[in-house]
Amino acid sequence: MEKDKTISNTTIRRLTKYYRYIEELDLKETSIISSYTLGKMMGISPSLIRQDFNAIGEFGRQGHGYNLDTLKKEIGEFLGINKIHNMIVIGAGNLGQTLANYDGFAKVGFPIKGLFDINPKLIGMKINGIEIIDLDQLNSFIKDNNIDIGILCVRKHCVQQMTDILVDAGIKGIWNFSAIDIDVPDDVKVESVNFSNSLFTLSYLMNDKYTNQKS
Amino acid sequence: MEKDKTISNTTIRRLTKYYRYIEELDLKETSIISSYTLGKMMGISPSLIRQDFNAIGEFGRQGHGYNLDTLKKEIGEFLGINKIHNMIVIGAGNLGQTLANYDGFAKVGFPIKGLFDINPKLIGMKINGIEIIDLDQLNSFIKDNNIDIGILCVRKHCVQQMTDILVDAGIKGIWNFSAIDIDVPDDVKVESVNFSNSLFTLSYLMNDKYTNQKS
Repeated sequence: MEKDKTISNTTIRRLTKYYRYIEELDLKETSIISSYTLGKMMGISPSLIRQDFNAIGEFGRQGHGYNLDTLKKEIGEFLGINKIHNMIVIGAGNLGQTLANYDGFAKVGFPIKGLFDINPKLIGMKINGIEIIDLDQLNSFIKDNNIDIGILCVRKHCVQQMTDILVDAGIKGIWNFSAIDIDVPDDVKVESVNFSNSLFTLSYLMNDKYTNQKS
Repeated sequence: MEKDKTISNTTIRRLTKYYRYIEELDLKETSIISSYTLGKMMGISPSLIRQDFNAIGEFGRQGHGYNLDTLKKEIGEFLGINKIHNMIVIGAGNLGQTLANYDGFAKVGFPIKGLFDINPKLIGMKINGIEIIDLDQLNSFIKDNNIDIGILCVRKHCVQQMTDILVDAGIKGIWNFSAIDIDVPDDVKVESVNFSNSLFTLSYLMNDKYTNQKS
């Protein structure tokens, strides 16, 4: 299957929604589902569902419904979530610890294997069973534990420096929670969670001056 | 100025970027900037910048550059971030406390005024000077403190129940950190931060099977 170069971020987010939704359905009770039924349950139009599924492969026939097992497998493969991705957190402050405390990532195949910090008071502590390790152990830890994702939870002034260290250590994916854009080589992928941008979007949506004005 | 109904989420996120960028520039040293210079500094194409600015108003003339004060004011007004939005956090667990500890929101006009929980052990505690209050005080607190945004940091099973309580109390914006979609009336706006969706997007980007295959 070839990657459709035009697939959008919005489509990817819907695909993750389908995946999580199907995961929660009881596959023993249902094995085939129509885009109509799925759409009704998820509040998404059936034609958009068919369009999304067509964008990633050909695993349903019009009028025959979709096999849920196949669907889950294909979407999972497309998103790369059918295999384990080992992660580490850089920065064991509030946010880093919050992410370490969340078991949901491990459940879907993204376990956090270690937290890294430079604060001697934190090193050696365990958060949800995950040890806080001195940053100078980073390189060997990444190699020994087959880490492919680094989660950046550090302060602004050291974001790029930590990025460079992760890249040098061979990390291929960075989940960036800092409010700063980072520079990486082409073969390293970045996904950012930017709280301020999200909050400003909410503010825009709530802005009466524009949203309640008819054009 | 009328709202352009076709303005996309991506544009809004870029507008927030311009806003934050301009905020950090020294307005004493520069008062006029061209789309070319801004683009070079931000790594965004000048034509896209002009297109974005045109989408929200008419405050620059081709060849004359943009006045930074005007630009900041207009973008701020468009995004609704020129006024104070008082917020509360529902759920004083790890994530709720992390958000309360972050001073960045207050700095841009979105102060967190209270944290709400039902756990008697937490009630009365202060996080970063913000009190954890019993949920049964919610209605009066919202009215007395002119709260317009509720931040949902509660567990899956009570997300919709908490949403309904916020809506009944008159909240007009919900910043939803739970991994669940919520139902709200049309006049209530929702912006979600979904960690799993973001992580799956990173996974997709890293997925060699698709990203390294040429079509």
